[in-house]
Amino acid sequence: LADQCVEEGFMKERLTVIVLGASGDLAKKKTYPSLFDLFCHDLLPEHVTICGFARSQMADEEFRERISALLHVTEPAHEALREKFLSKCFYRAGQYGSEESFSKLHHELVDWENDQDAQVADANRLYYFAIPPNVFLDNAAAIKAVGMSQRGWTRVIVEKPFGNDLASATKLVEEMNSVLTEEQIYRIDHYLGKEMVQSLLMLRFGNAFLEPLMNRQYVDSVTITFKEDFGTQGRGGYFDSYGIVRDIMQNHLMQVLSLVAMEAPVTVSGSGNSGNHIRDNKVALLKCMEAVSLDNMVLGQYVADQQGNEGYLDDATVPDDSKTATYAMAVLAVHNQRWDGVPFIMKAGKALDSRKAEIRIQFKPAPALGAMFAGQDFARNELVLRIQPDEAVYMKCSTKAPGLRTEPITSELDLSYKSRYSDVYSPDAYTRLILESLRGKQATFVRSDELIESWRIWTPVLKQIEEQQVQPIPYVYGSRGPAEGDALAAK
Amino acid sequence: LADQCVEEGFMKERLTVIVLGASGDLAKKKTYPSLFDLFCHDLLPEHVTICGFARSQMADEEFRERISALLHVTEPAHEALREKFLSKCFYRAGQYGSEESFSKLHHELVDWENDQDAQVADANRLYYFAIPPNVFLDNAAAIKAVGMSQRGWTRVIVEKPFGNDLASATKLVEEMNSVLTEEQIYRIDHYLGKEMVQSLLMLRFGNAFLEPLMNRQYVDSVTITFKEDFGTQGRGGYFDSYGIVRDIMQNHLMQVLSLVAMEAPVTVSGSGNSGNHIRDNKVALLKCMEAVSLDNMVLGQYVADQQGNEGYLDDATVPDDSKTATYAMAVLAVHNQRWDGVPFIMKAGKALDSRKAEIRIQFKPAPALGAMFAGQDFARNELVLRIQPDEAVYMKCSTKAPGLRTEPITSELDLSYKSRYSDVYSPDAYTRLILESLRGKQATFVRSDELIESWRIWTPVLKQIEEQQVQPIPYVYGSRGPAEGDALAAK
Amino acid sequence: LADQCVEEGFMKERLTVIVLGASGDLAKKKTYPSLFDLFCHDLLPEHVTICGFARSQMADEEFRERISALLHVTEPAHEALREKFLSKCFYRAGQYGSEESFSKLHHELVDWENDQDAQVADANRLYYFAIPPNVFLDNAAAIKAVGMSQRGWTRVIVEKPFGNDLASATKLVEEMNSVLTEEQIYRIDHYLGKEMVQSLLMLRFGNAFLEPLMNRQYVDSVTITFKEDFGTQGRGGYFDSYGIVRDIMQNHLMQVLSLVAMEAPVTVSGSGNSGNHIRDNKVALLKCMEAVSLDNMVLGQYVADQQGNEGYLDDATVPDDSKTATYAMAVLAVHNQRWDGVPFIMKAGKALDSRKAEIRIQFKPAPALGAMFAGQDFARNELVLRIQPDEAVYMKCSTKAPGLRTEPITSELDLSYKSRYSDVYSPDAYTRLILESLRGKQATFVRSDELIESWRIWTPVLKQIEEQQVQPIPYVYGSRGPAEGDALAAK
Amino acid sequence: LADQCVEEGFMKERLTVIVLGASGDLAKKKTYPSLFDLFCHDLLPEHVTICGFARSQMADEEFRERISALLHVTEPAHEALREKFLSKCFYRAGQYGSEESFSKLHHELVDWENDQDAQVADANRLYYFAIPPNVFLDNAAAIKAVGMSQRGWTRVIVEKPFGNDLASATKLVEEMNSVLTEEQIYRIDHYLGKEMVQSLLMLRFGNAFLEPLMNRQYVDSVTITFKEDFGTQGRGGYFDSYGIVRDIMQNHLMQVLSLVAMEAPVTVSGSGNSGNHIRDNKVALLKCMEAVSLDNMVLGQYVADQQGNEGYLDDATVPDDSKTATYAMAVLAVHNQRWDGVPFIMKAGKALDSRKAEIRIQFKPAPALGAMFAGQDFARNELVLRIQPDEAVYMKCSTKAPGLRTEPITSELDLSYKSRYSDVYSPDAYTRLILESLRGKQATFVRSDELIESWRIWTPVLKQIEEQQVQPIPYVYGSRGPAEGDALAAK
Repeated sequence: LADQCVEEGFMKERLTVIVLGASGDLAKKKTYPSLFDLFCHDLLPEHVTICGFARSQMADEEFRERISALLHVTEPAHEALREKFLSKCFYRAGQYGSEESFSKLHHELVDWENDQDAQVADANRLYYFAIPPNVFLDNAAAIKAVGMSQRGWTRVIVEKPFGNDLASATKLVEEMNSVLTEEQIYRIDHYLGKEMVQSLLMLRFGNAFLEPLMNRQYVDSVTITFKEDFGTQGRGGYFDSYGIVRDIMQNHLMQVLSLVAMEAPVTVSGSGNSGNHIRDNKVALLKCMEAVSLDNMVLGQYVADQQGNEGYLDDATVPDDSKTATYAMAVLAVHNQRWDGVPFIMKAGKALDSRKAEIRIQFKPAPALGAMFAGQDFARNELVLRIQPDEAVYMKCSTKAPGLRTEPITSELDLSYKSRYSDVYSPDAYTRLILESLRGKQATFVRSDELIESWRIWTPVLKQIEEQQVQPIPYVYGSRGPAEGDALAAK
Repeated sequence: LADQCVEEGFMKERLTVIVLGASGDLAKKKTYPSLFDLFCHDLLPEHVTICGFARSQMADEEFRERISALLHVTEPAHEALREKFLSKCFYRAGQYGSEESFSKLHHELVDWENDQDAQVADANRLYYFAIPPNVFLDNAAAIKAVGMSQRGWTRVIVEKPFGNDLASATKLVEEMNSVLTEEQIYRIDHYLGKEMVQSLLMLRFGNAFLEPLMNRQYVDSVTITFKEDFGTQGRGGYFDSYGIVRDIMQNHLMQVLSLVAMEAPVTVSGSGNSGNHIRDNKVALLKCMEAVSLDNMVLGQYVADQQGNEGYLDDATVPDDSKTATYAMAVLAVHNQRWDGVPFIMKAGKALDSRKAEIRIQFKPAPALGAMFAGQDFARNELVLRIQPDEAVYMKCSTKAPGLRTEPITSELDLSYKSRYSDVYSPDAYTRLILESLRGKQATFVRSDELIESWRIWTPVLKQIEEQQVQPIPYVYGSRGPAEGDALAAK
Repeated sequence: LADQCVEEGFMKERLTVIVLGASGDLAKKKTYPSLFDLFCHDLLPEHVTICGFARSQMADEEFRERISALLHVTEPAHEALREKFLSKCFYRAGQYGSEESFSKLHHELVDWENDQDAQVADANRLYYFAIPPNVFLDNAAAIKAVGMSQRGWTRVIVEKPFGNDLASATKLVEEMNSVLTEEQIYRIDHYLGKEMVQSLLMLRFGNAFLEPLMNRQYVDSVTITFKEDFGTQGRGGYFDSYGIVRDIMQNHLMQVLSLVAMEAPVTVSGSGNSGNHIRDNKVALLKCMEAVSLDNMVLGQYVADQQGNEGYLDDATVPDDSKTATYAMAVLAVHNQRWDGVPFIMKAGKALDSRKAEIRIQFKPAPALGAMFAGQDFARNELVLRIQPDEAVYMKCSTKAPGLRTEPITSELDLSYKSRYSDVYSPDAYTRLILESLRGKQATFVRSDELIESWRIWTPVLKQIEEQQVQPIPYVYGSRGPAEGDALAAK
Repeated sequence: LADQCVEEGFMKERLTVIVLGASGDLAKKKTYPSLFDLFCHDLLPEHVTICGFARSQMADEEFRERISALLHVTEPAHEALREKFLSKCFYRAGQYGSEESFSKLHHELVDWENDQDAQVADANRLYYFAIPPNVFLDNAAAIKAVGMSQRGWTRVIVEKPFGNDLASATKLVEEMNSVLTEEQIYRIDHYLGKEMVQSLLMLRFGNAFLEPLMNRQYVDSVTITFKEDFGTQGRGGYFDSYGIVRDIMQNHLMQVLSLVAMEAPVTVSGSGNSGNHIRDNKVALLKCMEAVSLDNMVLGQYVADQQGNEGYLDDATVPDDSKTATYAMAVLAVHNQRWDGVPFIMKAGKALDSRKAEIRIQFKPAPALGAMFAGQDFARNELVLRIQPDEAVYMKCSTKAPGLRTEPITSELDLSYKSRYSDVYSPDAYTRLILESLRGKQATFVRSDELIESWRIWTPVLKQIEEQQVQPIPYVYGSRGPAEGDALAAK
């Protein structure tokens, strides 16, 4: 890949990455480690500068020390690169959204850029917003005013939450887009950086045997599941203000759904606006979906189990009377030619019986089984794409039980990444996404209209839940969640 | 299964198995070991007698000694059953086709039957013809005249060769059917007893994702391959009079083809005439096939390699000027709604690069790949059913190469029996088929009209080869066979 | 066609048609007019003799006079052929089933045959049984004994009723087949001679756009309807002993159903046993159908209307307490891959609102209509094949209402035979079928196993109706039949 | 419809239609007659004013006289409305693109508006550009500056030519869009107003039997044909500078193609941005098409016939050495999942054998016809949508020839509008489109990106033709065009 990227413009040009909020959690846990990972794999240009920015004063050295400990290497050989990487890292303090601060920063950036090889024409800038959304706009405006590269592209990576409902998201989008163009904004949903999610379109459209089956004629239901096997563990405060729908479903699972269900785009890979082809079709899909109704939802909240695991309300950071759902299940519908009548089931929850994220496409029963194989039970075919942990693709199928019996048994046509690709470097989602932003590939970032459509689908039910003070159904820590969820799915 | 069979009539009734040609190779290598295997798995009735029959005089004890060595056990626990099994084995000498001999034998059978529990009403008889086809008819006539069970069913197992061409096969069938009914004749093609072949219909019709794909819209070609990685090894005499087409293709591979390609039967499993439903559809399929033409064939004969492996003509038992093909490849066509235009490619050969038998269903390319994934190479999907060795089902597919690249790589959705069912008892094909004959399940035996249709398809080209003295193309021992074969397949 | 038939053997050979029951209704209304029709169209061989046979004594001339009045011509030019035709007609009296009578007849036939051109080698015989089924067997036996042609084929046309239930039909079949082979027996179901029914397979398999739609994915239901707009009109006696199910459904409508629903045969047209290919698949289809249950039936009996039309029980020839259904509706199921889950609805009745027989294939709604065309109503697509009167094929479809509106209206893609083929000769069903019997095309005649399967499906419910003395629902003469019928269809 | 439109806003509001170029041909032949037609059908608001605008001075009365003769009535009853309509027509002279002229006009418009019922809040304005494209921009700018309605919407109808190639079209679009928004611009392609074209999406997506067939599995080719049976008739000057490709194919036929081939939109009908859903998918389709290559084209130019019809070069207004094509045929490809591999054939020409415009979807042959119906010829199924003259939809199909023969004949499932809807008002394309512009339905107008994509596809080959001075193939007036066209289509 390094070879391939070298071919691309950005590797031959100068680059400055400016990490706003450099002292925060996100920057330390994700942004810097991913930048280091790219560096180790020769995927940053030779002429790169990485400048942290935050309010607190700090010398470069102090900052380097702080982040150094977080830069884990995936291969021993990379250890030697740590110092080199750190030597490219700087830190500047300033006020968020202050034109004065950004102007000062800009001049330093220009100096750094000038320090680099003058033969290299372009000097690109990537601003990474590891800051809260309430300061997005001011910083964007300041960058627009005084921080744009004069000799290359300027891009901004921002991260969720992108609003709290349709109105706030629309406002955020409109404000940001009044300052920066859609082509300059890279909205991260880190699910789009996961291996299996990235593989989805190639799997769907690159295999002749799959697309003919991916429709209402053959598919009985599609279930997209996110499960955690632990609770808020004393840190539920932030979560409580969002709840599981806003935290997981409206963004991550909707992204997965739209990739699973979208029509084939004009192009998937390739340069230029292929990113918009994919996103056009994701948006077209979302437009075929009605707003979720409360009738098609089950909400749950976990309670303590017998083994000493605390319930959600036992978390000291959670209000005693919180009605926030830690589990939700919803049945969505896609009213288009391909999917009309096929339920899309979303499930997400904390403190459940296992930890996993997966897509499960269940097929209708084979026709006339009862007549052809009287008295025998066949399991349904299911195509499962496990996103985490342990990426896998498998098709649940029926074969004759081996031996003398002529009964069916359930088996799997299996592709487990762990066993198949045990020695392959598997980068973090952030590493993938930062690289794609450098390459200018917007397909894996959230376009504003996607965001708006997703909020259109979810906002009414969220309002209703809040207004009606809907009481979530209690479920025991470590269980499958409320039985009502399974019941709704079975309908 | 034993439980299940007990429910069926034959397990509660008396049974005599008469092995004609008891001293021959087939009886010793296949018939007796399989009967012992069934015995060990409690799949012979309590009141069973097994009587060998051949021309040479021998005492029971001597016969038991001869066969004892050949009765391998699959589980140590079965060792203890050997003596018990042998105690049920007897031997009688007589003339093949002699009414006198069979009449005498019949009276002994009746005596044995009478020795059994009188409470059991029925006494069934299975004659196993481990004898050359030229004595089939006389023995059948003698059995019909004096050897039929008066208190239960009488069935006859016969084995290939069933004629040498359409005329001889028709004669054989007509003669046999003038003596015994089709319901009494069980023609073995041992490929029908192989695990993967037995699994075929359940795989095809029991999985909703497969049948929609099994047609001319999606399938580019179907290849049925039989390869051996050794030659005639000094025992080519018998083979030389048949050649690879008659030895492998006209029977075994045609059976596999007809199961892969047939329409869904009225019933697959179940009692009664479901066996005819399957065979009706196999015959209907064969009727949609034209006779093979020489233009669509490649013939080969192996020659010595550099490692000291002899060529076919070096085999001392083979005539020096033999034109017998040890390799053949043919492209067949099925003119029905499902398969019109899809080539069915058959390949069989000795002394090739590997040993295997498999079915390979290659799919057409996914549409618009070039537009959606410009510049990227995708392998074709292939569904492979490996019959031997190491039964497996796998779908060759494309996934995104894991890691940062967005290129496709070829992978497999895999179901390998060896790893999945490592501890499952895998009976020999003969064991399966003898059991099915006892259960009266004719679906896995060759019906006369199947036989006739298969010969109709193959006879013209075989005649042509003989009349035109077609010279097979030499290929080196251990190679892939003549390049012309690959070229024809690629057309 | 005459040209084409001349190519076929029978036109060049001698032929004798022997009409048993020559003085009966069937012979006079159907057999002789159809033979005359064939004669007028040059579709009888030059050397043809037609010999009536019945019990009453009559001279040839008297007989000729009797039938002459019934020989309607379809074209004025044919009038001139009447005398010539009559000159080939003879009459002989004798006892049904009497070997003596048939032996005598046979010798006269031989004489006639000998009178013909001796250059013509073969002399074929077609016995037309225009007699009650209770004398079928004796006559067949007598023919077999002394009436077979020695120099050509001998065929027998028989007509329903073929038994009254499974047991009686099985007996009839077994008895007849013990005397004549299946190849010699031509069982007429005159629906198989109707233009639209004869066209069915060509329509289904000769049009690329139809077969892809003819399955459970697209078809919502198939309705086969037979309606008469008159009652028994004082001649209900015969009908009363049968009822509408035995009179119409079990035979005519089941034939239509099996042609509509069967799989594509190996061959449709062509010589030889192609007739069996079609019938094989009709039988395979019937085998996929369960016996009809009373739950899936509605029975009705018409009562007088206000306009003076009598009710069924008012018919003097009908018992006052008759529970015989004059209307029946049944929902049948076909458990195979193509049709699993699609209801096949049969409706038949007398004294209904119109006179027609048709097949109506209703499609499922187009997907996502509600989303794509919000607030607009689309009619379902229906492919209708009208069998009588006025043969037609039409597809009910939706188009934009012409003009400025953008609403759908229901329209038809229409092929009306009357307007399209107004000047084409449309032969009677009997004319078609007699010709096919002469050509040896058995596909349009009922094979014994079809008959048996059809009775298997209908016998249980008929027994149940009789045993439970099920009371039919009254419906008014000239109405649509009982509302319960529509309700059942709508389920 | 009038009822329905009354419900819509524009009917209750004030409306001024300003016809720029009011004295030109287009205005007189199309704009005014269509406005009158709408008026007669109660499809203009009560408070409507129609103001002609051009350079020449004229009094209202004079102008009214000029147009009065052109206002044909479709129903006698409408005659009475002529005077009323004319009383709403005014005329003002001015300079195109002059802010002064438009400002003056604006004030008069406001006066007229004020004369209307003051209860009606909104006053909308529709500018109809019946002027050459070189003055589009200036007029648009003047309108933007001083001519916008202050109390309602302002829309502009423009008409082709929209540029001459990709560069000029892009320039035109960019300039116009710099002044007016896409929502304000209604680009007419009058083919989008034709009955059959308007019906296309309802036909495709409202009928369950059609969409399953509309893809590469079943369709062999799609041919879109435009034929005129007359030449330039002495008025070829204008045409000569464009040629048949620019005149017919790049716009009209591409519009037809994109509607025939596009994917199902999120919504077809309904309010709001459903127009963009359709246009999104039209653009997505065009993006899947490569630029046309000269290898896939045939060009022709007609020459005189024997009946005295002049050749193209005989037209005095045409340069003697003109290489302008009067006939063109091109094979296009759509590289998406639905159509990959299906040729889209476009044919357009003058002086051909007939006058018609139609879409012909030819299906692949039904499978296994040769096996099922040996020796019989079946025509291909073709679904034909005739756009003009005499709108019709028909499916060419095969049925059994009626009568005794069992051969297929070609027939049609037919829906001819003329016979079916003989009495229905069929408005002119312009009437439809002006109404749709008033209703704000942009789906039937050309969006800028459609235009650009279409020029992207056609520009390279047009350049090549010009640069290489490609000589068109001569064909005789009244013939089918060059034989090379048929040959290319047959490939």
